[in-house]
Amino acid sequence: MLYVQKYGGSSVGNIDRIQNVARRVAKTLADGNQAVVVVSAMGDTTDELIELIHKITQKPPDREYDVLLSTGEVVSSALLATALGELGHKAVSMTGAQIGIRTDGVYTKAKIVEISAERIRKELDAGNAVTVAGFQGINEHGDITTLGRGGSDTTAVALAAALHADVCEIYTDVDGIYTADPRVVPAARKLPAIVYDEMLEMATAGARVMQSRSIEFGAKFGVRIHVRSSFNEGEGTMIQGSVEGLLDGTGMEKVLIRGVAHDTEEAKITVEDVPDQPGVAAEIFGALSDRRINVDVIVQSATVKDKNDISFTVGRADLSRALEIVETAVKKLGGGAIRSDDTIGKVSIVGVAMAQHPGVAATMFRTLSSNGINIQMISTSEIRISVIINRDKVPEATRALHKAFGLDAPSAS
Amino acid sequence: MLYVQKYGGSSVGNIDRIQNVARRVAKTLADGNQAVVVVSAMGDTTDELIELIHKITQKPPDREYDVLLSTGEVVSSALLATALGELGHKAVSMTGAQIGIRTDGVYTKAKIVEISAERIRKELDAGNAVTVAGFQGINEHGDITTLGRGGSDTTAVALAAALHADVCEIYTDVDGIYTADPRVVPAARKLPAIVYDEMLEMATAGARVMQSRSIEFGAKFGVRIHVRSSFNEGEGTMIQGSVEGLLDGTGMEKVLIRGVAHDTEEAKITVEDVPDQPGVAAEIFGALSDRRINVDVIVQSATVKDKNDISFTVGRADLSRALEIVETAVKKLGGGAIRSDDTIGKVSIVGVAMAQHPGVAATMFRTLSSNGINIQMISTSEIRISVIINRDKVPEATRALHKAFGLDAPSAS
Repeated sequence: MLYVQKYGGSSVGNIDRIQNVARRVAKTLADGNQAVVVVSAMGDTTDELIELIHKITQKPPDREYDVLLSTGEVVSSALLATALGELGHKAVSMTGAQIGIRTDGVYTKAKIVEISAERIRKELDAGNAVTVAGFQGINEHGDITTLGRGGSDTTAVALAAALHADVCEIYTDVDGIYTADPRVVPAARKLPAIVYDEMLEMATAGARVMQSRSIEFGAKFGVRIHVRSSFNEGEGTMIQGSVEGLLDGTGMEKVLIRGVAHDTEEAKITVEDVPDQPGVAAEIFGALSDRRINVDVIVQSATVKDKNDISFTVGRADLSRALEIVETAVKKLGGGAIRSDDTIGKVSIVGVAMAQHPGVAATMFRTLSSNGINIQMISTSEIRISVIINRDKVPEATRALHKAFGLDAPSAS
Repeated sequence: MLYVQKYGGSSVGNIDRIQNVARRVAKTLADGNQAVVVVSAMGDTTDELIELIHKITQKPPDREYDVLLSTGEVVSSALLATALGELGHKAVSMTGAQIGIRTDGVYTKAKIVEISAERIRKELDAGNAVTVAGFQGINEHGDITTLGRGGSDTTAVALAAALHADVCEIYTDVDGIYTADPRVVPAARKLPAIVYDEMLEMATAGARVMQSRSIEFGAKFGVRIHVRSSFNEGEGTMIQGSVEGLLDGTGMEKVLIRGVAHDTEEAKITVEDVPDQPGVAAEIFGALSDRRINVDVIVQSATVKDKNDISFTVGRADLSRALEIVETAVKKLGGGAIRSDDTIGKVSIVGVAMAQHPGVAATMFRTLSSNGINIQMISTSEIRISVIINRDKVPEATRALHKAFGLDAPSAS
């Protein structure tokens, strides 16, 4: 079997941990398997490099920023190859440039456009394990680019796709994907499997195990992604195209909802009395997008004639910047008062089966209502329903929904 | 004019110093010149990386060692390009791989076999200053190699050759090349110029300003190398093919000896009563060479019939290792006692003109003799005479020779 494995920054945080990772990889190799191992930079390395360049300027050129940051992963990959060698396994490290991870030209958050599997294949055929510096590639000019947050996950999934690997294992500091955050919901269960789309919605809804981009990549190329712990041997969660196979057997499982996600890192902005005319939303949200502020839930409601209220959520960290931008836009539009609320939270239920079961939304709203939780905003997708509520109520709402949709572990029910 | 400049590890030891280097480069650019700037790793970075990999193994694989070490220079080059940007100069950093520094396959001390000037030319033509990660290249397989000690100097000189630069400036922590080490000889004078061959002999003889390899490279391609201080604006020493032009004018200068070099980092090994037969030297020195121990001065003398004494010097740091190797070899050869002396030093006089003046050696020996300094070994080249003496006598001998050959500064004579 060909494994692509990925170990994050905390898994390779120091030499001891790198040696642990090497032993783990060695176990994979000992069974006669081949391994390509993608690594992030050691622990705080990336932050230290950022601090260094910020001593020169708070706005470093993107190109040089990428060159600088890319070195962290190269260091990890060389050290891991060395540690594997010490365990008696032939291993070679590869930079993003060396294995031909071609990206577009957008520095600091480049997208992979092509991977040449040739060089890695050659090394694997020669009996080498291959350690790969994650998070980086080169653009058409041969300049170094980095892939942005979660970039090493994307490297791993993309390599798994290019190499037609049997599985892509993402080693992390959690056991896998849970039906809810176990810190909030003690009865949460680890999922043996989850569908790409569900995982994407869970990620968007606040489950921070993997970045959306790498899941999208996995979905596009049908890469089975095994999210598991780097600190124990237990099976994690398989992210794949379908979980039907895993649900058969008992015949009893009728999973409507795969999980409940929550997010307490958002804040709400409301603009009152904006003119009810075309281009208003474009003006406000265009201005925010230009400044790279992500907007999540949006609700527009007609209050009086020719006037609308628009409410939306942004990341809490972006709130003050967003307010400035919105104020400028609203001044231009001739809108009314702007209010913000930094005490909101979001709870979401996710499941591919919900599309066929119209009662899901009703169950969700009834559950919240019977727990005395007021819904401020609602947003839905084909396989997700999110509600914005008071942040203090988020844990209670998450637990109640988890129970209501039959997700509680048997021992806890 | 096109300048290639090189700044060593202490010149880029922290962000302040990198910003200083940027200002210095900016001054070069401000006069309408083009600049390619080669940098070493920041201060102790390389040592820290070595420490890291030595936590895994004392004998890391050469390939991974090179990958690891190469990152230090990449960091410096990105930071310097950023600092130049802050000063309003367009600048891009380049790794050894990006500018196509092709080396042979020998890791940790690779030799440059080819440089493609194309990429740098393109960037220069686009109005960019180019910062280059020194000390590194790639071999024919695209694997990262490092150039060994003084590798960044070699990068700079090789780039100057490939780009037909007007001059290659080596910025260092000394003012230039002196007629002797000013710490030992207060009357030493800075040389405005020195011939490649002389510089090579001076380097071999103990002047540690530049590594021999980069000077050889300069000689081979006729690159004028300006060794100067990164801490002041004064002119340094030009290393070039001929200094005739500089000596004309007065008509009075009859420089026989360019400088006096000394080295207190050697130790002597003597093997007594080895058989006087072919292959003996090959056996001993072959064994040392296989273990990468450099042998400097060698003297063989017939003592009794069919038996020889062989004395030679090695680096002090290599003495105990060398003794082990020699013992094994001598056991095989059936030689006699092995003695070592860790209290020796070497003093050398260097000058291209000495070949035409047979009195030089006599003057040297007479000077030492009249100062009561005993000569243990002698070694000569076309343009150098070295003597091994008691280490305690090295400063006195250096000063006496400096004066005897008319090198003392006028104020001191």
